[in-house]
Amino acid sequence: MPLSFQILGHDEGSSARLGRLATAHGVVETPVFMPVGTRGTVKSLTPEELAEHGAQIILGNTYHLYLQPGHELIARHGGLHRFMGWDGPILTDSGGFQVFSLVYGGIADEIKGRRPAHPQNQQGMVTVTDEAVVFKSYIDGSRHVFTPERSIEVQKGIGADVILCFDELPPFHAGQEYTAKSLVRTHAWEARCLAFHRRTLGGEGLSFTAPNSDQALFGIVHGGVWPELRRESAEYISGLGFDGVCIGGSLGGDKAQMREVVDMTVPHLPDGLPRHLLGIGDVDDLIEGVARGIDMFDCVSPTRLGRHGTALVREPAKRFKLNVANAANREHTGPLDAWCECYTCRRYSRAYIHHLFKAEELLGIRLVSLHNVAFLLQLMREIQRSLAEGRFGELRREWLHS
Amino acid sequence: MPLSFQILGHDEGSSARLGRLATAHGVVETPVFMPVGTRGTVKSLTPEELAEHGAQIILGNTYHLYLQPGHELIARHGGLHRFMGWDGPILTDSGGFQVFSLVYGGIADEIKGRRPAHPQNQQGMVTVTDEAVVFKSYIDGSRHVFTPERSIEVQKGIGADVILCFDELPPFHAGQEYTAKSLVRTHAWEARCLAFHRRTLGGEGLSFTAPNSDQALFGIVHGGVWPELRRESAEYISGLGFDGVCIGGSLGGDKAQMREVVDMTVPHLPDGLPRHLLGIGDVDDLIEGVARGIDMFDCVSPTRLGRHGTALVREPAKRFKLNVANAANREHTGPLDAWCECYTCRRYSRAYIHHLFKAEELLGIRLVSLHNVAFLLQLMREIQRSLAEGRFGELRREWLHS
Repeated sequence: MPLSFQILGHDEGSSARLGRLATAHGVVETPVFMPVGTRGTVKSLTPEELAEHGAQIILGNTYHLYLQPGHELIARHGGLHRFMGWDGPILTDSGGFQVFSLVYGGIADEIKGRRPAHPQNQQGMVTVTDEAVVFKSYIDGSRHVFTPERSIEVQKGIGADVILCFDELPPFHAGQEYTAKSLVRTHAWEARCLAFHRRTLGGEGLSFTAPNSDQALFGIVHGGVWPELRRESAEYISGLGFDGVCIGGSLGGDKAQMREVVDMTVPHLPDGLPRHLLGIGDVDDLIEGVARGIDMFDCVSPTRLGRHGTALVREPAKRFKLNVANAANREHTGPLDAWCECYTCRRYSRAYIHHLFKAEELLGIRLVSLHNVAFLLQLMREIQRSLAEGRFGELRREWLHS
Repeated sequence: MPLSFQILGHDEGSSARLGRLATAHGVVETPVFMPVGTRGTVKSLTPEELAEHGAQIILGNTYHLYLQPGHELIARHGGLHRFMGWDGPILTDSGGFQVFSLVYGGIADEIKGRRPAHPQNQQGMVTVTDEAVVFKSYIDGSRHVFTPERSIEVQKGIGADVILCFDELPPFHAGQEYTAKSLVRTHAWEARCLAFHRRTLGGEGLSFTAPNSDQALFGIVHGGVWPELRRESAEYISGLGFDGVCIGGSLGGDKAQMREVVDMTVPHLPDGLPRHLLGIGDVDDLIEGVARGIDMFDCVSPTRLGRHGTALVREPAKRFKLNVANAANREHTGPLDAWCECYTCRRYSRAYIHHLFKAEELLGIRLVSLHNVAFLLQLMREIQRSLAEGRFGELRREWLHS
C-alpha cells in the first residue's frame, strides 16, 4: 500500500475529523494545509523554512514542471524530492486544471468574479476531444498533447507521493447539460488514469526510471454546482478504488456556493478515504471546510498574497488580511500578527516590513510569504489540537465571529 | 574610544596585514569583506543567513536610507541595527557617492566603461557648491540639500558603528586641475564632518535621540589617479584624527589603474588606522587589495550578480564567474562551486538552480546571492588564515594563477 489513512477522531458538532496519512515520504497529520510549490519551489522559501514552520506536505504543479524543466529531467535527477531538496511528502496535480484555466480562467478567478489572467490566450490555446487535450505552452507557444495516460506518466517522472487524475475543468458558466457531458468524459479519463497507473506500478513501459514506486492515486469528484451530478460523481469515483478523493471542478461563484458544493458531495464519499478540497485556502474556508469533513487543502494564496504585501492576520473583521504597505504600518512596532509564532513575527516589526515593500526589496516578499504560509500551518495545528481535545466548535466560533 | 584597531601580523612578501577591529557592536577580523545592504537589507537575505555564513560587518547606504524610510524614523525605531534585526557591526557611507553617481555615473560604471545607469537624470539632478549639494530624489523628484553636517546628522540617526565623511565624487574624466580643486572642497567638507561629529558626540543639538553614541568616523582619501594628489590627500586626512581611512574618489579606468591608485596611496597612510577600499569586491581585487595593505572592502557585486544568475566560482580562467542559466548547467548535478561551503552549495545542484532561473523563481536569486556573499566571506577567512600561518603569498598564487 503506497498510502494508509487512519481516522483518529470525529468532532461531535460537525463533520470534522482528525486523521493521519502515511505516505512513502512520511506521515501527514490531518486536517492539513499544503503550501503550493508550482515550479519545484514554494515561492521564495527553502525546504528548511517550510519544515521548521510545520509544513508536512507540499504540492507541485505537473503542467508547469512538465514544461520546465520537464519530468524526464526531474526523473534523471532522482525525482522532485531530491531535485528540490524536500524530503517530505509531495502531491502533484494532473495538469488538467492549468491547461483548462488557460481557456476558461481558474476557479479562483471565478469565485472572485475576475476575468481569466490571460484572455489573449483563449483563442486556439486548447483543443479538447474525448481522447486528448492539445495545448500550447505558455512559455514558448510550442504544441503539447496531454492524455490521461500522459498525465500519469509525467507524474511518475516527477515522483510525488500522491498523484491526481487528469480531468476536464468545465467553465463556471457551463450549464447543467454541458457539465453532465463533461462529467462523462472526466469519469472515463479518471478510469483510464487508474488503469494506466496500475499497469505501470513498477515503472513498466516508461521511458525513464520512475523515482518513486510508492505513489498513491487520488480521484477527483466533479459535477459543478448540481447536487445530482455531484452525488453521481462521488459515488462513481468512490467505487473505482482510488487511494483518496478530491473535490474539484467548478465550485460555484462565491464562498457560499463553494460550501454548498462541499455539503452536497461529502455525504456521498466513503469515510475511510482522505478528502482533498482542491485549490481552497482562505482562513474561513479552511475552518468551514474542516467542519464539513475535508482532510486536505492546498492553495497558492499565502505566497501570492505575500508577493503583494498582504499578510494574513487573525482579524475576521478585516477578512484576515492586512496590507503591510498601508501607511498605517509605517511606524508600527508590533509584528504582522500577535498570535503568529513564525520567524517573521518573532523578528521583525510591521514598520520594517512596510519599509521593505516601499523600497521594493525581495526580503519583504520573502518575509510575508513565510508568515502567510506559517500562519495557515499554525492554524491547522490549532484545528488539529482542538479536534483532539473536543473543542473544535469553540475554535470555529472564536476564529470566525470574534 | 568608539573603535580600536589592532594589527596582529604582517605578511613578509607583501603589504598585507592581519588585524582586529573592535566596534560598539562587536569585533571584526580583518582583512574583511562587508556585504552591502543598501536599503537596510542585504538583498534577499536575512541577518541570520549572513551571520551563519560568517559576515562580521555590513554596509548600509545613507542616501537610500535617508530617502526611504528616513533616518529619523530609523532613530525612533532604535537605529538600523534594531530596525533590520542585525546585531553586529554596521558601516554607513555618507551619501556622497550616490548623489554624485546620479550625475557622473558610478565608479563601477567607469571601471567597466559603461554609461551612467540613469543618463536622463543627469540634467538638473544635482547642484554643487562649496557649501552644499542640492539633489532630487530618485524616488519622487523631491528636492533635498546635503551638507557635510547634514550627512553626519543623518548617519547619527541611522546609528551605524562606523560612519564616513561626506565627499565630492569627481567624474572619472575630470583632469588633474578639476580633481585638485575638488580635493580642496572635499578636504574642507571632511574637516567639517569631523568637527560636527565631535560637537554632537553625545547627541547634542540633534532632532532625534541618537541610537548609537559609540560611532567611529572614517575619513576618505581622494586625488583621482594622480600620485601627488593622492599623497597630499593621504597625509592631510591622516592628520585630522579620524578613526580610520578610506580610499575613495575616482579609482581609474580599469583594474590595473585602480591597483596603481592603491599603491600610490597606502604608503602615505599611518600603519595604525584601518584602511577601507571603497566599493571594490571582485575576487582578484580582494586578494590584490589585501596584498597592498587594505583591511576592509565592500561591494554590491555578490548580490547584484546573484540577481542575474551569475555565481562566483574558484576559476580564474573564467574570471571567477559562472552563468548558471547557461545551458551547460541544465543537467549538472554538482554544486555551483566545489570549494564553497555555503548552504546553497551544500544543498542544491546547478541543475536545480538553473531551473529556478529559467522559471524566474525568486528562490534562485536568493540561493545565488547567498552563495556569492558566502563565497567572498569564505575567501576572506582563507586569507586571514593564510596570513596567520605565513602563507598568504602561496594563497595569492593559487587563487590567481591556477
